[in-house]
Amino acid sequence: MRSMPELIARKRDGGELTPDEVHWIIAGYTADEIPDYQMSALLMTFMFRGMEPPELNAWTDAMLHSGDVLDLSAIAESKIDKHSTGGVGDKISIPLGPLVAACGIAVPMVSGRGLGHTGGTLDKLESIPGFSTAVTPEQFGPQLERLGLVFAGQTETLVPADRRIYALRDASGSVPSIPLISSSIMSKKLAEDLDGLVLDVKVGSGAFMKERRDAERLARTIVDIGAARDTTVVALLTDMDQPLGSTVGNANEIVESIAVLTGEGPPDVHELTLRLGEEMLIEGGVAGDRASARGLLDEAIRSGAALDRFRDVIAAQGGNPAVVDDPGLLPVAAHTEALTAPRNGYVTACDALAIGRASVLLGAGRQRKEEPVDPSVGITLHAKLGATVETGSVLATVAYNDPTRRDAALPLLTEAWDVREEPPPSRELIIGEVR
Amino acid sequence: MRSMPELIARKRDGGELTPDEVHWIIAGYTADEIPDYQMSALLMTFMFRGMEPPELNAWTDAMLHSGDVLDLSAIAESKIDKHSTGGVGDKISIPLGPLVAACGIAVPMVSGRGLGHTGGTLDKLESIPGFSTAVTPEQFGPQLERLGLVFAGQTETLVPADRRIYALRDASGSVPSIPLISSSIMSKKLAEDLDGLVLDVKVGSGAFMKERRDAERLARTIVDIGAARDTTVVALLTDMDQPLGSTVGNANEIVESIAVLTGEGPPDVHELTLRLGEEMLIEGGVAGDRASARGLLDEAIRSGAALDRFRDVIAAQGGNPAVVDDPGLLPVAAHTEALTAPRNGYVTACDALAIGRASVLLGAGRQRKEEPVDPSVGITLHAKLGATVETGSVLATVAYNDPTRRDAALPLLTEAWDVREEPPPSRELIIGEVR
Repeated sequence: MRSMPELIARKRDGGELTPDEVHWIIAGYTADEIPDYQMSALLMTFMFRGMEPPELNAWTDAMLHSGDVLDLSAIAESKIDKHSTGGVGDKISIPLGPLVAACGIAVPMVSGRGLGHTGGTLDKLESIPGFSTAVTPEQFGPQLERLGLVFAGQTETLVPADRRIYALRDASGSVPSIPLISSSIMSKKLAEDLDGLVLDVKVGSGAFMKERRDAERLARTIVDIGAARDTTVVALLTDMDQPLGSTVGNANEIVESIAVLTGEGPPDVHELTLRLGEEMLIEGGVAGDRASARGLLDEAIRSGAALDRFRDVIAAQGGNPAVVDDPGLLPVAAHTEALTAPRNGYVTACDALAIGRASVLLGAGRQRKEEPVDPSVGITLHAKLGATVETGSVLATVAYNDPTRRDAALPLLTEAWDVREEPPPSRELIIGEVR
Repeated sequence: MRSMPELIARKRDGGELTPDEVHWIIAGYTADEIPDYQMSALLMTFMFRGMEPPELNAWTDAMLHSGDVLDLSAIAESKIDKHSTGGVGDKISIPLGPLVAACGIAVPMVSGRGLGHTGGTLDKLESIPGFSTAVTPEQFGPQLERLGLVFAGQTETLVPADRRIYALRDASGSVPSIPLISSSIMSKKLAEDLDGLVLDVKVGSGAFMKERRDAERLARTIVDIGAARDTTVVALLTDMDQPLGSTVGNANEIVESIAVLTGEGPPDVHELTLRLGEEMLIEGGVAGDRASARGLLDEAIRSGAALDRFRDVIAAQGGNPAVVDDPGLLPVAAHTEALTAPRNGYVTACDALAIGRASVLLGAGRQRKEEPVDPSVGITLHAKLGATVETGSVLATVAYNDPTRRDAALPLLTEAWDVREEPPPSRELIIGEVR
């Protein structure tokens, strides 16, 4: 006869739970047989004691099987997804999906919405008129087979244990646990029936992980969970001290995503998209090394195949594919206001966290789950880290509808930039990799 | 605006809660505004992070004021209580109360029931026909003023937060926290409006604290909580590797308690009663040092004043005082069976935990709060640590009513004793003191 108080006490005292016990706990919690107050106490023991690999693998497996698991075995192509731990201006999934799909990878991409200062892929896509991310199970497989890409939101039946446990962690102080974060990510990704995953672990002010060391531990933990289930995971650690690209918002990030697919995206977004794409092509067996993968990706952009694929996916999900050729069809905010440099010098700070928060205040993100987002508002960055500026040069343009929201956002934005005489140390976009 | 997730996270990360925050937490929990799952997570952080003295003092204070506090300011005598952390055969409170009351101390003794392998003072007293421990607030003060002693159970209105938090700790793995144990004990004792407290911290197999080091930490923590509230606490650390005295049960422990009051108790029970009594008389200002305190206690036994006081308290609480002179009026079990020594030698083990568990199986204790106890059953010990025995000598006599329960208890009892050729190392009854 298993007893939660005894299992909690064992873990508390440095012991280990067996895989059977872990499955019993997740099943009992999902079935409302184990109360929240026991689960929250157990989750807190993980904050202090961590989880051993067998515990973590069992925990992830039990979460994964708490609901439906996609069956994509009919898909001939390798199924590879990409996951980012979340950042500001991080629209990479949007150009990356069509690009690798055009190279022969199947991407069953189940994404989230923006919360806090980080944006969400679903919100950005939904700024395309008509676009729906509420993909039914009946649509999912056929669209993936036909187009190699589905952009979908999480359904109620996919990994329900994760939703409940995440809400409990949020309310009871056990969010920043690397094993719990890892199993939350991997249970959802493994429910997509993947062959491989490429992980973009953000590091810096605008990221969940502020320190490289924590980002590396997270990446290592996730790579190991994947290995235990024969799912290759490659993780890149990438900079999130400043936003990615030149746009932070929703519709404006779609415009930038389209630019990447025509080869005209900002250098950082372009490079990160292709770098992650290389790993996906290698994982999927479409390319043998990075150089040949880069060749395939470059060709898919040059030929227009990647852009065509995006057009097809937009149409398949109810959106207006004409936005690809005429971004003026996307929502546009009523007003703009420029933020200018206070002096001559180098941009030495362009703080992702502050800019992300300002974008939420403008209405481009949400502080509570139930809030709507305004797809038209956002921030365009004209001068990022290392840029030289003169007094009065435009650092950023704020697109807004509501002057009250503009007034709330501007002080945060002003503080996000710093201009000094000396240039900042140069920064790498791709800081490291774990595989 | 205070937020429980933020307070939990601060404590989790090694920070400290302010006294105001602690009061807010206890008040919010008692008022059902803070849910169990947040409280259990916070309690788990205390398991790992401990509590700083200001946190612990505030926690104890907030618990204490979660319900009614006795007002015994009308009592002229010093109000001194004794608390034991619980053991097997630990009937000390029963002779100690009348003994020190006869010497001029007021003892507002609020006790608990037995749970697990340890017995409870209330259960033992209720084996006296008619005796009631359900003392009303209206009876409490007048009886204390008249007789210097009340034996009462905890009421619903005394420290309600402790009852709820204890139940939550029990169900969520945060029982063995020294600060939480300390504040649980002290909030209840301070609610008795005490001038001083003598604490008997048990150490050994039959005690909650198996290690001397933990017992010392508990004692020091409680002494310090007392000092912060101008309540003198003296703690003795005493042996609980074997049961106290010669009886484990309920009615049989009353018989032994009466023997102590006539000067005929087993040496260990007699000595510990008088040793704790010395401290109570000194704390209460009735004696200036241990020698003069011992003189007063010896005289109260010799003169019969202590026994008279017990008779009066029994009568005041509805019991039949004639049991003091005729123990045959107490419940007696239908059958007895002897446990004998398997070989010649010295008793090298007489394990308190095993004997306590056997006594529960006989029906003398309870494994769940709602179970009744059978006052008549129990165990009489004839050979304790260091005794010399021969093959067939009686080690213990089991008094039982139900042969099924006897059969369940006997194997545990058999394992409790060990008889070897070499004598065991001698053990001290009183291991240390903290003041």
